[in-house]
Amino acid sequence: MNIRFYNARILTMKDENIIEGELWTDNDRISYIGPSVDSNDKDFEREIDCKGNLLMPGLKNAHTHSAMTFSRSLADEYCLNDWLFKAIFPREEKLTPEHVYWFSKLAYADYLAGGITSCFDMYFHKDENAKAAVETGFRHVFCGAANDFGGFDELEDYYNRLNSYDPLVSFYLGFHAEYTTCEDNLKRMSELAHKYSAPVFTHISETAAEVEGCKERYGVTPAVILDKLGIFDFGGGGFHCVWFTDEDREIFKNRGLWSVFNACSNLKLASGITPVYKFIEKDMKIAIGTDGAGSNNALSMFREMYLSTVLSNVETNNAAAVDPFTILKAGTTGGALCMGLNDSDVLDAGKKADIIMLDMHKPSMQPENNIIRNIIYSADNSVVKMTMIDGKILYEDGNYTTLDINEVIRECNKFKEDLA
Amino acid sequence: MNIRFYNARILTMKDENIIEGELWTDNDRISYIGPSVDSNDKDFEREIDCKGNLLMPGLKNAHTHSAMTFSRSLADEYCLNDWLFKAIFPREEKLTPEHVYWFSKLAYADYLAGGITSCFDMYFHKDENAKAAVETGFRHVFCGAANDFGGFDELEDYYNRLNSYDPLVSFYLGFHAEYTTCEDNLKRMSELAHKYSAPVFTHISETAAEVEGCKERYGVTPAVILDKLGIFDFGGGGFHCVWFTDEDREIFKNRGLWSVFNACSNLKLASGITPVYKFIEKDMKIAIGTDGAGSNNALSMFREMYLSTVLSNVETNNAAAVDPFTILKAGTTGGALCMGLNDSDVLDAGKKADIIMLDMHKPSMQPENNIIRNIIYSADNSVVKMTMIDGKILYEDGNYTTLDINEVIRECNKFKEDLA
Repeated sequence: MNIRFYNARILTMKDENIIEGELWTDNDRISYIGPSVDSNDKDFEREIDCKGNLLMPGLKNAHTHSAMTFSRSLADEYCLNDWLFKAIFPREEKLTPEHVYWFSKLAYADYLAGGITSCFDMYFHKDENAKAAVETGFRHVFCGAANDFGGFDELEDYYNRLNSYDPLVSFYLGFHAEYTTCEDNLKRMSELAHKYSAPVFTHISETAAEVEGCKERYGVTPAVILDKLGIFDFGGGGFHCVWFTDEDREIFKNRGLWSVFNACSNLKLASGITPVYKFIEKDMKIAIGTDGAGSNNALSMFREMYLSTVLSNVETNNAAAVDPFTILKAGTTGGALCMGLNDSDVLDAGKKADIIMLDMHKPSMQPENNIIRNIIYSADNSVVKMTMIDGKILYEDGNYTTLDINEVIRECNKFKEDLA
Repeated sequence: MNIRFYNARILTMKDENIIEGELWTDNDRISYIGPSVDSNDKDFEREIDCKGNLLMPGLKNAHTHSAMTFSRSLADEYCLNDWLFKAIFPREEKLTPEHVYWFSKLAYADYLAGGITSCFDMYFHKDENAKAAVETGFRHVFCGAANDFGGFDELEDYYNRLNSYDPLVSFYLGFHAEYTTCEDNLKRMSELAHKYSAPVFTHISETAAEVEGCKERYGVTPAVILDKLGIFDFGGGGFHCVWFTDEDREIFKNRGLWSVFNACSNLKLASGITPVYKFIEKDMKIAIGTDGAGSNNALSMFREMYLSTVLSNVETNNAAAVDPFTILKAGTTGGALCMGLNDSDVLDAGKKADIIMLDMHKPSMQPENNIIRNIIYSADNSVVKMTMIDGKILYEDGNYTTLDINEVIRECNKFKEDLA
């Protein structure tokens, strides 16, 4: 489908400038961005008057467990360790592929309503999840979730299979975390990374206790031991990074690894507050994710981006500790590059049409003293007017084009008893 | 106008129960809440099928400076003191009644879109603001803003005049803060409180520096000196309360004063994090506000309520440090009682029809493991389907019935140069 957006303001994210004009799509790609020009010879299937609303790259949720929507508001009383071992792991044993199919669709509905065009997802029953992604038209990047309880045997198969399943789906090597993975399995992880010259992602330094445990086991922090085992020899990165030492940041900086922040989940589970400003001072590669709905409990990149800025202010006694545009880059371009979506990072001719429209007529986006700051400090999901992935409009004015939201809600609530 | 809401779920906020049934309004009041009964003899002007959506009391924004929407994203680089003295006070000198009229309307648009049905507002040019409130149909409670730069001469006049201006408008005695008000003026404040046996509200213990300054001036904290001067002899309370000592909390508890929290503004201005759990442990009277858009920068009670829960978790290392229902009470019932809206506190027959409808078909409100937790941890303005004040629907499905949002936006942006 070829679409012409006109009367638009466009934040390409190549820089902070907002240009006025048009954006055209040609199937899954952007074919033109620039001033209004004669388009009479073009055969658009739809022409959309943006009325001054803002087009920008879709938000990239760079760490999540989509199907964990099953556990939203289910076990809010636990800190991370008890939450995992008492509330989540026992329920996850009961999870079937059908559960994952429907609860992933619920997450996609949430993502689309919040302007999220791709997710970097670590979870189970990946085949049913991939099916849900393709049916929805959602761009889903899987991350391996192997640990001592399972997953290493299937990792290579998933890597090969899901990387050739559908253009919307891809797969990165990954494991759950150092604290759930013994040294033998970590070495297995490293061997696989070397076999495929592939990046590896994992949860890392999420809690102080995790870092302490690792030090007891290896005498060093998780980043140090994983690096030493060669796991990051071909890149990758870590989720959370709350308790990174300066040495950990140095390793991530030098290897060009991605640090993915999850402010809401870290607050809720009492894990801690990431000093985001320290990563930015070092000009490190950063991205942002929601983590799962069980620990967040929202799946809102707006809330994540907001907290990724302001939570550093109190610690530094500096109201400008973290620059809003840097965070907006982390939430869009950074996330895309982190998960290998090199054609979804910015808006430009030839790039993928993974685009959102923000409604500038919402009061929270006014007045227009600074539109980027309005997005970071003031916006929430209510400003998302449209979400397009791969050139297809999947969400517009509250309506879904590929999801039957009532069916998704009905199916998800059917499973409440199974997973209570 | 008499309206029948049916197929509703109703959270009255009298307790945590959610009942299924109907809610009827009779002009500005609720006339019935309960199971579906024969209503054929009733003459409703409108009957609304709620389709299972949730009716609950409107959110109460218990501390704000509405017209400060002019300063949203205008001066995000400053901590509180520089922000006030370098960025805000010089611009406020240029503010005209016309500015306040339009920027208040912009705030009302934001409030209505976020399910807020009343605000406790401290600002200037109150007559134009009152006019904007009544035109909009918004329930606006003024708080005096007197300090050494002005306001004490007019305070009594405002108190008498605005308390009899319109049923939607009321006025509480108040002053800006101890640090902007000399002892003579504080005594004047106390005399006025005694003359009218009236509660008094003020900014209090917002920053550590403010408390230190007060200790230098009086040898004690702001709560202690204000209490000593008799300012709180007839009740009232304070906004922010970030740096309260145990003694301050004891005074507020014993006098039955309101502590109003403003988590977002305190984070953004690097003022600090309020230990909300300590106020709840003492069973104190608590409410929640957004503060102004210049320091927040959103005006979202959902974001405030969310942060009023989770920000205590890290400090206490307890994921359940603050109970979500207690915070939802603070954001609804507490706010209402704090600002004297004793008929807008809960939903019940005879109470004011200040009601919101939350869209339970939004993915962020699903699955329904726990609806109250979904509201606190997961919802944002995008779940607000309808906002009714005084029996009138002012916002429904993104549309305003009393505001021309495009006119408000146009007028507000006209003033950008005046206030740059």
